[in-house]
Amino acid sequence: MNSDNFNLSEKIVSPSYIRQGSQARRGHEQLIRQLLEQGKCPEEGWSESTVELFLSELAVMDSNNFLGNCGVGEREGRVASSLVARRHYRLIHGIGRSGDIAAIQPKAAGSSLLNKLTNSVVLDVLKLAGVRSVASCFVVPMATGMSLTLCFLTLRHRRPKARYIIWPRIDQKSCFKSMITAGFEPVVVENVLEGDELRTDLEAVERKIEELGAENILCVHSTTSCFAPRVPDRLEELSSLCSKHDIPHIVNNAYGVQSSKCMHLIQQGARVGRIDAFVQSLDKNFMVPVGGAIIAGFDESFIQEISKMYPGRASASPSLDVLITLLTLGVCGYKKYLSERKVRVVHTSPFYTAKNSSSLTMSLDGLQANSDKAVTQLGSMLFTRQVSGARVIPLGKEQTVSGHTFRGFMSHSESYPCPYLNAASAVGITREDVTVCIKRLDKCLKTLKKEGGAVSSSDQELHQGLDL
Amino acid sequence: MNSDNFNLSEKIVSPSYIRQGSQARRGHEQLIRQLLEQGKCPEEGWSESTVELFLSELAVMDSNNFLGNCGVGEREGRVASSLVARRHYRLIHGIGRSGDIAAIQPKAAGSSLLNKLTNSVVLDVLKLAGVRSVASCFVVPMATGMSLTLCFLTLRHRRPKARYIIWPRIDQKSCFKSMITAGFEPVVVENVLEGDELRTDLEAVERKIEELGAENILCVHSTTSCFAPRVPDRLEELSSLCSKHDIPHIVNNAYGVQSSKCMHLIQQGARVGRIDAFVQSLDKNFMVPVGGAIIAGFDESFIQEISKMYPGRASASPSLDVLITLLTLGVCGYKKYLSERKVRVVHTSPFYTAKNSSSLTMSLDGLQANSDKAVTQLGSMLFTRQVSGARVIPLGKEQTVSGHTFRGFMSHSESYPCPYLNAASAVGITREDVTVCIKRLDKCLKTLKKEGGAVSSSDQELHQGLDL
Amino acid sequence: MNSDNFNLSEKIVSPSYIRQGSQARRGHEQLIRQLLEQGKCPEEGWSESTVELFLSELAVMDSNNFLGNCGVGEREGRVASSLVARRHYRLIHGIGRSGDIAAIQPKAAGSSLLNKLTNSVVLDVLKLAGVRSVASCFVVPMATGMSLTLCFLTLRHRRPKARYIIWPRIDQKSCFKSMITAGFEPVVVENVLEGDELRTDLEAVERKIEELGAENILCVHSTTSCFAPRVPDRLEELSSLCSKHDIPHIVNNAYGVQSSKCMHLIQQGARVGRIDAFVQSLDKNFMVPVGGAIIAGFDESFIQEISKMYPGRASASPSLDVLITLLTLGVCGYKKYLSERKVRVVHTSPFYTAKNSSSLTMSLDGLQANSDKAVTQLGSMLFTRQVSGARVIPLGKEQTVSGHTFRGFMSHSESYPCPYLNAASAVGITREDVTVCIKRLDKCLKTLKKEGGAVSSSDQELHQGLDL
Amino acid sequence: MNSDNFNLSEKIVSPSYIRQGSQARRGHEQLIRQLLEQGKCPEEGWSESTVELFLSELAVMDSNNFLGNCGVGEREGRVASSLVARRHYRLIHGIGRSGDIAAIQPKAAGSSLLNKLTNSVVLDVLKLAGVRSVASCFVVPMATGMSLTLCFLTLRHRRPKARYIIWPRIDQKSCFKSMITAGFEPVVVENVLEGDELRTDLEAVERKIEELGAENILCVHSTTSCFAPRVPDRLEELSSLCSKHDIPHIVNNAYGVQSSKCMHLIQQGARVGRIDAFVQSLDKNFMVPVGGAIIAGFDESFIQEISKMYPGRASASPSLDVLITLLTLGVCGYKKYLSERKVRVVHTSPFYTAKNSSSLTMSLDGLQANSDKAVTQLGSMLFTRQVSGARVIPLGKEQTVSGHTFRGFMSHSESYPCPYLNAASAVGITREDVTVCIKRLDKCLKTLKKEGGAVSSSDQELHQGLDL
Repeated sequence: MNSDNFNLSEKIVSPSYIRQGSQARRGHEQLIRQLLEQGKCPEEGWSESTVELFLSELAVMDSNNFLGNCGVGEREGRVASSLVARRHYRLIHGIGRSGDIAAIQPKAAGSSLLNKLTNSVVLDVLKLAGVRSVASCFVVPMATGMSLTLCFLTLRHRRPKARYIIWPRIDQKSCFKSMITAGFEPVVVENVLEGDELRTDLEAVERKIEELGAENILCVHSTTSCFAPRVPDRLEELSSLCSKHDIPHIVNNAYGVQSSKCMHLIQQGARVGRIDAFVQSLDKNFMVPVGGAIIAGFDESFIQEISKMYPGRASASPSLDVLITLLTLGVCGYKKYLSERKVRVVHTSPFYTAKNSSSLTMSLDGLQANSDKAVTQLGSMLFTRQVSGARVIPLGKEQTVSGHTFRGFMSHSESYPCPYLNAASAVGITREDVTVCIKRLDKCLKTLKKEGGAVSSSDQELHQGLDL
Repeated sequence: MNSDNFNLSEKIVSPSYIRQGSQARRGHEQLIRQLLEQGKCPEEGWSESTVELFLSELAVMDSNNFLGNCGVGEREGRVASSLVARRHYRLIHGIGRSGDIAAIQPKAAGSSLLNKLTNSVVLDVLKLAGVRSVASCFVVPMATGMSLTLCFLTLRHRRPKARYIIWPRIDQKSCFKSMITAGFEPVVVENVLEGDELRTDLEAVERKIEELGAENILCVHSTTSCFAPRVPDRLEELSSLCSKHDIPHIVNNAYGVQSSKCMHLIQQGARVGRIDAFVQSLDKNFMVPVGGAIIAGFDESFIQEISKMYPGRASASPSLDVLITLLTLGVCGYKKYLSERKVRVVHTSPFYTAKNSSSLTMSLDGLQANSDKAVTQLGSMLFTRQVSGARVIPLGKEQTVSGHTFRGFMSHSESYPCPYLNAASAVGITREDVTVCIKRLDKCLKTLKKEGGAVSSSDQELHQGLDL
Repeated sequence: MNSDNFNLSEKIVSPSYIRQGSQARRGHEQLIRQLLEQGKCPEEGWSESTVELFLSELAVMDSNNFLGNCGVGEREGRVASSLVARRHYRLIHGIGRSGDIAAIQPKAAGSSLLNKLTNSVVLDVLKLAGVRSVASCFVVPMATGMSLTLCFLTLRHRRPKARYIIWPRIDQKSCFKSMITAGFEPVVVENVLEGDELRTDLEAVERKIEELGAENILCVHSTTSCFAPRVPDRLEELSSLCSKHDIPHIVNNAYGVQSSKCMHLIQQGARVGRIDAFVQSLDKNFMVPVGGAIIAGFDESFIQEISKMYPGRASASPSLDVLITLLTLGVCGYKKYLSERKVRVVHTSPFYTAKNSSSLTMSLDGLQANSDKAVTQLGSMLFTRQVSGARVIPLGKEQTVSGHTFRGFMSHSESYPCPYLNAASAVGITREDVTVCIKRLDKCLKTLKKEGGAVSSSDQELHQGLDL
Repeated sequence: MNSDNFNLSEKIVSPSYIRQGSQARRGHEQLIRQLLEQGKCPEEGWSESTVELFLSELAVMDSNNFLGNCGVGEREGRVASSLVARRHYRLIHGIGRSGDIAAIQPKAAGSSLLNKLTNSVVLDVLKLAGVRSVASCFVVPMATGMSLTLCFLTLRHRRPKARYIIWPRIDQKSCFKSMITAGFEPVVVENVLEGDELRTDLEAVERKIEELGAENILCVHSTTSCFAPRVPDRLEELSSLCSKHDIPHIVNNAYGVQSSKCMHLIQQGARVGRIDAFVQSLDKNFMVPVGGAIIAGFDESFIQEISKMYPGRASASPSLDVLITLLTLGVCGYKKYLSERKVRVVHTSPFYTAKNSSSLTMSLDGLQANSDKAVTQLGSMLFTRQVSGARVIPLGKEQTVSGHTFRGFMSHSESYPCPYLNAASAVGITREDVTVCIKRLDKCLKTLKKEGGAVSSSDQELHQGLDL
């Protein structure tokens, strides 16, 4: 309420109480002020009441909520269902304009503020998470894969002759498809096995560059976040290579914001060489619903070029989700999640592969010896026991994705030496999740053992180790 | 947002758009201002977004939502469940203080405003509905019956010797019990049959007053809203009688606000004689959940005396419901409901008993002739066919309520000449409700006819008449 | 969804996934089943999704949500505002019938279930909290004071001659008024000072009984939960006395459920003597909005008598709040709150008066010496610094409540030796609340000292002790 | 609740009432059953309670809501903020899989059902709206422009040599950009003026095809919905041309679902010739928030090819919005909106250009004569008077979009004879909107007249005509 209304209220309820109420309002306003002034994630999370007050303030600034508005266009933010209006806090106009997804909408000052602030707060969090020199970013209501596609499409205008994308292999369909969809030919570079880890084959990358010719290569498309035994790509070296050959470099950092390791690699890569953009998922890093990504980079003008490439307005829903979440958590809350995740990793250290901080792995060699079918069976057993997210990686699976055949699919390698089981250590995972997972896994292994013969002692060992 | 925050926003989003947003905000503020200034129901209903904005403004003024609040009392508005907090719009402190249900709470300026404004808006609506000279009222989170009890308990302090309440018979349990609960002895005055209507026996009332002695009588407890064939009590005559004998007069106006007839009777009664308080249900008149009532009267000090009689703070839930509803409907919306209800009554005129505008009635004499059981059977047939609210009134039912035996219970008379069926014409009823009711009733009557013999032609006639 | 719909879904989405979804549904159903079977508070709290699923299941059973319903009565659960419908989960019919607030409504099977289950779950929690032999209870949508009034009104019918209620003094307005409102004359029995504690004067109580005559006394009205230096009444002795003289005994247990001490006293009182009913607040014990109470007792028929005394249907809102809260918390969650509260008490032990576990107290003798005004000033200073709930008790305040004058009001005694400051240790209070309170108190005391002279060293001492 | 739980409930509340409640539940189940069985938009809209019941049923089938779920992956539907969880009805997993946006997710049977049903219901509505032979469609959480891009990217794999897209000019940035973003070169074909209408220059299109060579042309990109004086493209002829030259044909039907004219053109085009896909906006046709589109076509396999082109999972938010909206409206409700829109058009017939049913136009020739600046001024005057959506089209504006310069931008023509004002007649527009718009326009014109000279009488005439 404005001061007039507070004054009127003093005539109805005792002035001193109203004054205290009005002062309390200023407390909320003060938080909003800091956000507007600094554009940063608040240190302490906001209460839900501040968040909702703020959103309702934004909503009244959009023309669809003007009391006297007379909309005669086809884009008037009309909503037929009150359930729908309510769940979007009456912010209906989406974000961006036909010209630019980051642009301001004349009809929707509130939604425009939401969009700008979200991008600003997210940029702040990327910095705090380790990429201190990131210059610009924006939230886009598309998954990581489609966002990578948008990056590639933008680069096409800069490199009209280029046809190839160099891509150190990572067995995840959508990032492979992101290149296909953009109309390029992925050049798959197999990883090399170092100890039990799969790492970027830098020499092979450079060989390919020379072979194809730099000008024919759209970019190098590298990956940070992945599951053991594959480890993050050698970003420093790849960035230097790109710099040397004047080739753009796009990093798939899907669930890497939560990993200080991944973020550090990006920061270092940009310092010593060239990273044009790095893309991360909203849901995997910020515990929001699926469907958004952040496209970030070190050169503001290139990031703007990408945002201008998105034709038309777009859904504000992912922006709204991530803004609510970050305001509610605050820097403290988000860091707490990240550190809890780390604790998980450390507690389960026998399975922690030094260079991969995103996942836990366990060899299934013994199970394989036991029976060929047992490995696959284990996967479905876990699924029906409501352990979701654990991946069982068999040996020698072939898979064709968009015309390209991968041998040893899911293991990131044509010839990984053993089958294994893999679990992510994602943000939001709790100690209890891990404990329950181990218990159920234990039961499954025992059952399989009874059915088909003994599980090797080495498995047992690994397995006991997991028992927290 | 305050002006500082609007200024900051202008740096993020184009100033002209922000300015329009800020101007739009003033539109909402302006509506709130009118409410605060005039304390009246707005002419046009508010949009849901204005209502929710207003409620969130109220909530931030309550100490449980102060950002820096430090509560060390036992009454701090703590809420364990966020579902609960949300459904009350974070208004947790209820209304009133230990001293007075209408009093202001130092810790809860917002809830206090809510309480004061609700009472003020409701008072305005009572005036608009026809009781133009009503002086004061308050919403109490108790049903009509318990609210009547509170009135009687308040009168006790004024009339310590009184033991009796004179009550023209109306067959509704809770209003009878309201007197028993308060510790008084109801003196039941049977109605007289005039034509097919049951009306107040004024002479019998006066006889009772003289017989018992005015000083031994706590009050006359009359009724406006009722079902045909009983008609509203003769309020003018009763009020004059009370005035003459210096006896308080409490009116049960349960679902009478929606009836211009009932409201007119109260206005007239107060003009020519004495009405100390009249009590109406919130749910039946304002389409809100069950559980609240309005206690109103023509002498502010007596109404305050009642509100001070309620020991302790009370639930704000009924006040919140009625305020949301009236702000959303506005005077126009509420009047539209009332006029639709009237249309219903007129359209079904064959069954409209001139002096009762609250219900529709149809004789079941033919059915009775047919078979004794058929009348009762009809009631349960309608119920299982999802016609709710239709009452079948058999002949000669006996019922004991709190020790008193009523003969011919539900018919408001010891000897009504025929059984009948009764439906209310309540606010919110739609044309379709009436049509469907008639269709289902038709089927039931046909079935009963087949089973047990012919339904008399007179029934058929009445019945055809209803077929809109 | 029922099994037909699951079968149909299998044709749209893979059968194995649907089967897992259907199995997951059974998980929720299983929790609901346990609740229906046992009527007890679940050990582990339910997720919000189970709670909301359950409430929507209840709602569809009420006739206002029947798809084909045709309502032609005046009590059809019509709701004009969708905001209102939603906030009540579409449970509109309230609880009870005109005959009995605990009765089942034919039109509202869902609301009736809600009502029955709430009473059953609350009974379970009362047992767990220490009153193991409680036989019956019900939630009533009225504050503690009005609920006490209802108990007294019920007793009147059993003891028509009685005019007095014997009441060991406790300085809280609404419990005093509860007797006045019911039409009885409170007989105030002053407390005796034992050490620095104020305790029940048993001899004075017995003297009064003999003086007035047992048959003229409606009941003894005792209190458990109170602030130091007053301690809970001697319930065992009072109960024995009531038993001996055949006088009913009503206990005001306002915020006593959270205190094992208070609950133990009630259990013991009922074991050795007579307790007819004990009344507790919902908001103060269960962290829900203001406006509900639980009336409980050891004789089911008497408790039913009270529930039948409430004339008419009543608001379901407090029942809904407490049911949501207890299902969400579970026994574990509720006990955790209780034990946190205890920790608070123990941590602040210098101020813990052995026989009072509900509050913390600190003498303000030094401040008083300093300046007369300083004591009162402290109160308002704390208030404006957003410390709510701390009570400053000056010396010798006189207050007239409903015609009765209390000397030394707020101190529960006509002559308590010193002024003091008082804070409740209520359920839901956090360690941080206490810390902040102490810090702000510290600043206030320093300011007062600067302004008007030195605060005595003993205050300083007490004060330092609080500094956790 | 399942039958076990209903049975248990019968022990708590009277069996007959529970049975009626259980029967009422079947009513809701029956509606859900029809939806699952037929996959069609219900004839009558569902109540909000049925919609919410259904959504909560879907949610419990997703693994993030499994009570015993143990998620150890990085895609577990974890949500940090309860505000966010709630606003998505706890449906967190989005839609699709990395392989295909229309694919089923093993972890999310509920979300998968939502996705399938939405696509099925939307297909039904497209048929009802006039494209009776549509074979397949899917909702994609991207605006129309980006969805067109996805279509073009898909076609690229079929026509690797193609570089051009033939595009009859329509002055709307995002559809132009959709081609640029996809990496193709738009070949702009200017419209021809027939009377005061701008129509497709079919000969120019065919000339271009011959000039460039069919194999070098990716597709023809035509438009249905547009503002007068441009009229929908000659779809029949274009489709025949595409068929003849074996060139794909993509139709931009942005806000055409609401126009029987546009839908008829598509149906006819597909009948006589070739339409590969047609794309429409969700917000503009279904009154939901911005950010979704429907990609539809007559060959299921091609539509699947597009859906498989989207790399990764995607936001379910637009699907959820449109499903809620269509279930709530039902076919009847949606048709009612469409017919209201038509009434608007007819009522304002003086301005209705026979071949364009989407907009109203008014010449500003007189104003132009008056003063050059007046035309532009009118636009901003309307904006500040809260008339949103009205477009003022000046003469001879130049605009460069992605490197291409358009002369006479916004008028769809290099040389339209006069400036004009344009308003859409979109679904959801009310009679009041039109009236208010006219009033405010009137005031603006009067002001401009006073300021700068007389507005020509012909304008006045047009203008008076609009005054309904």
